[in-house]
Amino acid sequence: MCSSPIRSESAFGHVAIVGLGVMGGSLARALASAPNAPTIVGWSPDADEREAAHREGVISTAAPSVEAAMVDADLVVLATPLAATLALLATVVATASEEATVTDVASLKAPVESEVTRLGLGARWVGSHPMAGSERAGWAASRDDLYAGARIWTVAGAEADGARRRVHAMWRALGAEPLAIDADEHDRIMALASHLPQLASNALAEVLAGAGVKPSSLGPGGRDMTRLAGSNPDMWTDLLHFAPDELPEGLRTLAAQAERLAEALERGDVAAVAETMHRTRHWGEA
Amino acid sequence: MCSSPIRSESAFGHVAIVGLGVMGGSLARALASAPNAPTIVGWSPDADEREAAHREGVISTAAPSVEAAMVDADLVVLATPLAATLALLATVVATASEEATVTDVASLKAPVESEVTRLGLGARWVGSHPMAGSERAGWAASRDDLYAGARIWTVAGAEADGARRRVHAMWRALGAEPLAIDADEHDRIMALASHLPQLASNALAEVLAGAGVKPSSLGPGGRDMTRLAGSNPDMWTDLLHFAPDELPEGLRTLAAQAERLAEALERGDVAAVAETMHRTRHWGEA
Repeated sequence: MCSSPIRSESAFGHVAIVGLGVMGGSLARALASAPNAPTIVGWSPDADEREAAHREGVISTAAPSVEAAMVDADLVVLATPLAATLALLATVVATASEEATVTDVASLKAPVESEVTRLGLGARWVGSHPMAGSERAGWAASRDDLYAGARIWTVAGAEADGARRRVHAMWRALGAEPLAIDADEHDRIMALASHLPQLASNALAEVLAGAGVKPSSLGPGGRDMTRLAGSNPDMWTDLLHFAPDELPEGLRTLAAQAERLAEALERGDVAAVAETMHRTRHWGEA
Repeated sequence: MCSSPIRSESAFGHVAIVGLGVMGGSLARALASAPNAPTIVGWSPDADEREAAHREGVISTAAPSVEAAMVDADLVVLATPLAATLALLATVVATASEEATVTDVASLKAPVESEVTRLGLGARWVGSHPMAGSERAGWAASRDDLYAGARIWTVAGAEADGARRRVHAMWRALGAEPLAIDADEHDRIMALASHLPQLASNALAEVLAGAGVKPSSLGPGGRDMTRLAGSNPDMWTDLLHFAPDELPEGLRTLAAQAERLAEALERGDVAAVAETMHRTRHWGEA
């Protein structure tokens, strides 16, 4: 006889994870290895991923369809690209229990919140955006400690207070740090803190590629600065469709800063460049 | 009686390391922990660093002056910022044995080569540029495995063939990978592969700081992209004085790329951005 720890009132007992890539796969692994692991049903459009997750014992059931995955869940996690997440919210309404809580892990929250409101899911939805990920993609890149120590931004209306407490408790149980934020404010910050660094890395890699610099010529700094340039474009395409204005504005400001540094170097004004370096070093220490 | 391994003909027996920061300190640590460690005399303008290196048993002698460090050496390593390296070459001529080999670790090689030629040191100098480092500075950030697996670009004239063989052998004994290159070609590549990523990180951090984004809002990608923004400005100032034209040109091309991506987003042409992402991903896999 094994001891049977009592599940806390707030913990989810049956979690459906739709999407078994880096984000969903890592959540499945983390939940499966946590104490009092819930029943985890997983679905991926990629049959190989579904089977791998089941074969490795991470998910209890590889659902034959997205509807089958959701039907008995008390938590539905949409861990899919943004466009798919928006489409799947209607499936949640049609299929999942009216008691089920819904979360997603999209990097932009305002488009999800709009669709949630339109569908009347506001009392059950708690959007999550984990500040964690990988430039690699798919189940093979998932790992059980992806969320350990990671900030998780969460977005929910006042009517979803109970759901928010339970979703926060889940993230905390995995060692993550959930923090509530307004959707528009979140998306503005992300445009600068996440999407701009991504495109800055792509822009830099374009310059290096165009100049014939090989990745093997890079030192550790150059490798850091071009790592994101290897990110999966498919993950970004629909995020970029919903990019807040802060992203193109940030790119233009970045261009202006690069021009300013070029001009300073050309007129031999190394002091101006050093001032920038001192300022950004100080910012990083804040 | 202990066994006395025979030192290879080519190995240096008495190494003077001028500068005990990340580069010089790490070289001292690596040499000290290698089989057949040479006598290592170290000097730093910072008395605390000199004493720490001696107290920790990494250097045999903390020299009281840069001249005293050099006087008995068969290899003089200048591990100082570029301006100091250029100035110290005259001290090498005045102080070191005429048999001594000289290397340096500056990130630009053409300015050092010019001064070496002017001073008639061409047969004894083998410039080294290790593609390794840290955004932290000083002896405290040095470590004995900094050079393990690192590419070391080396620059030397045909008349320094013997010296080059010995310097390459030293780097290889530390697990590094020396590779000969022409000074101008090296500096052009570095302007793009090392200096441009550095300033791109500073430019990005300026944008984020200016927009009120805090470092704590960054995910792993944003942190990677701003790590170099914490580099020591003093290490860069004199490198930038000698920056090849490729650096400001690269900054302008980066600005143009950032503008192009901003325009694409503004006209809703996400496909153009995705094309860039596919191209840079492919480049990184090359």
